[in-house]
Amino acid sequence: VSGSQPPRLYTFAGGDSGAWRIVRSTALAGEPLPEASRLAIIPGGASSGAAKWRLRGVTSNERYVTRAEKSELIAKQQGLGRPDSGCAALIPIRKTAAWWALPQDERRRIFEESSRHVRIGLKYLPAVARRLHHCRDLGESEPFDFLTWFEYAPADAAAFDALVAELRASEEWSWVEREIDIRVVRAGP
Amino acid sequence: VSGSQPPRLYTFAGGDSGAWRIVRSTALAGEPLPEASRLAIIPGGASSGAAKWRLRGVTSNERYVTRAEKSELIAKQQGLGRPDSGCAALIPIRKTAAWWALPQDERRRIFEESSRHVRIGLKYLPAVARRLHHCRDLGESEPFDFLTWFEYAPADAAAFDALVAELRASEEWSWVEREIDIRVVRAGP
Repeated sequence: VSGSQPPRLYTFAGGDSGAWRIVRSTALAGEPLPEASRLAIIPGGASSGAAKWRLRGVTSNERYVTRAEKSELIAKQQGLGRPDSGCAALIPIRKTAAWWALPQDERRRIFEESSRHVRIGLKYLPAVARRLHHCRDLGESEPFDFLTWFEYAPADAAAFDALVAELRASEEWSWVEREIDIRVVRAGP
Repeated sequence: VSGSQPPRLYTFAGGDSGAWRIVRSTALAGEPLPEASRLAIIPGGASSGAAKWRLRGVTSNERYVTRAEKSELIAKQQGLGRPDSGCAALIPIRKTAAWWALPQDERRRIFEESSRHVRIGLKYLPAVARRLHHCRDLGESEPFDFLTWFEYAPADAAAFDALVAELRASEEWSWVEREIDIRVVRAGP
């Protein structure tokens, strides 16, 4: 099946090499990651190389969005890799065990009816492109549940700050127990 | 975190050893698994040993059930490992790419409002105990999406047949592209 499909598994590696230069790494909740100067994004589950840290995640089906929300997202969003996307962010997050013990309807209510997660994201489209990677079910004890990768133009950096600030003020974020905000820019040649 | 937690990752290995004797393995859709005489269930991601096949899955949060459904399930269900559960079944399933492309609300509608997946399961509680393992997000190209493990007394074997027949007749099952039904009994000393 996977021959003709786009990759689903990605490795984010912080170290001395990679196409993105790390300009800031802030632990907003929980343990920070070791310091690194560059970020490499490698399709697949690469485990070799001299990285300071390495995080893996897999793209997957949607967990909360409805058909109507999905249609709005598809109509407004743009893909990764736009030439003017000189800025990016990797935000690894882990939610509490109590969050994961909630049934689906209660997680959905918090995610959207209370926290407006999709609604907030839509306001920043197409400026901010994004890809969500799931980690929690990669194995038994992953350090994070999600890795979200965002790309945007330098002129949209303030808008991106507003986006993450809105989400962090939501009820959903009261269930976040670890969050690192890693800002990067494209490394020169 | 995982030190005091129950295991989430399990390996099911078909081969010449294991606590369960395989009495029948039927490919209901897609490719069968190689023949094996015994089934071993090993906590963790064991990859050594001379198994004919090896399937891994991880227990995870609920994807569809509501608070009301979860409360009903918890009130009626019993755990694995009951002394009179001399029979068991392992049913690995893979759903189509089209299923996974559906938004959450449409998958939920098919799962419960149309197919009555929880409602059907409740009818067979507490006779049939079960543990669901997710595989799809373990990596990029797992052979199955789910491994469900069921345990029941020999006297409830006909009821178990009725349970799986009801589910297989549902709309949800039209999205199943691979399914193996492996029946086992406790191996003697």
